[in-house]
Amino acid sequence: MDPLRQHIEEIAPLTDAEFDQVQSFFTLKKVRKHQYLVNEGDEVKYEYLVLSGIYRVFYVDDQGKEYIVQFAKAGWWMSDYEAFFKQGKASMFIECLVAGEVFYATLDAREQLSKELHQMEHFFRVKLTNGYVAQQQRIKLLLSSTPQQRYEAFARLYPDLLQQVPKKLIAEYLGVSRKTLSRLYAG
Amino acid sequence: MDPLRQHIEEIAPLTDAEFDQVQSFFTLKKVRKHQYLVNEGDEVKYEYLVLSGIYRVFYVDDQGKEYIVQFAKAGWWMSDYEAFFKQGKASMFIECLVAGEVFYATLDAREQLSKELHQMEHFFRVKLTNGYVAQQQRIKLLLSSTPQQRYEAFARLYPDLLQQVPKKLIAEYLGVSRKTLSRLYAG
Repeated sequence: MDPLRQHIEEIAPLTDAEFDQVQSFFTLKKVRKHQYLVNEGDEVKYEYLVLSGIYRVFYVDDQGKEYIVQFAKAGWWMSDYEAFFKQGKASMFIECLVAGEVFYATLDAREQLSKELHQMEHFFRVKLTNGYVAQQQRIKLLLSSTPQQRYEAFARLYPDLLQQVPKKLIAEYLGVSRKTLSRLYAG
Repeated sequence: MDPLRQHIEEIAPLTDAEFDQVQSFFTLKKVRKHQYLVNEGDEVKYEYLVLSGIYRVFYVDDQGKEYIVQFAKAGWWMSDYEAFFKQGKASMFIECLVAGEVFYATLDAREQLSKELHQMEHFFRVKLTNGYVAQQQRIKLLLSSTPQQRYEAFARLYPDLLQQVPKKLIAEYLGVSRKTLSRLYAG
């Protein structure tokens, strides 16, 4: 089955005609390692569904320090969502860490498909529900936990990312120093 | 207009018959100051739409330290959403800080209304989109900003909460010490 169709139908079954309609809004793109899909200051026209590869969504503060908001791997959606939903300029970057392929689509696609196909509105609602819960867990981790607890939670949830993402970037994501992270890896 | 209807119709217009159907799933409840709507360990059967009053959603770590995940005021939704969506046990508490009224409804209500009324699925998707963006902003604040930046962002977004919520609880929400917060208020 088409990977886009399979991804959607895990949540919302579609007829062939409906899927044709959905598919017409999505474009496939190959992405090279270190290629940027979004740059700070860009108009954020697209959201991305990852087919393969690994990506990071991050921002840079006034002092030039980087902070990773999320990683993304196969089956995950990513964008600078604040800018995407408000059709504003990016405050973040999206960089490809491991080469792969993504589908991309516009906000109009999301809104129009949601309006025309109740099933697609359902699909996007369920994905947002999952994303909302994941973010709430992240907020709890950032508020309360020690570096070790954060590291352990990350290693439990994403053993594959732990293998494939440079340690420097995992430290950024967890909000711990690289030295602390090295101690945790060793421990 | 009925406040529930007004709240929903800001996003999704409903016919009278549709609103009757929606309304049948919601129950109004008066809440006293310091009353708990959710306790850690409870089954989380309901989500709450705040009509009036102020509430806090918080959890307590193994050492007994409290962390506030969100405040809620008129027009906001609240629950222990991880537990609510998974129909699991609460890891958090919801306490009323300023007396008021809430509507409450079950997960079945959300799912059934979304299935039967495309407009309601749209309503919940839009609310989740807004919640998702708000959480992403919170994650960025927690990752990168100084206590002063957090305080200023909070004061800008929620001047009413700044007036009505005890300083101790605002410090908890921002993840700063009470001493630091007092310095910021004075500054």
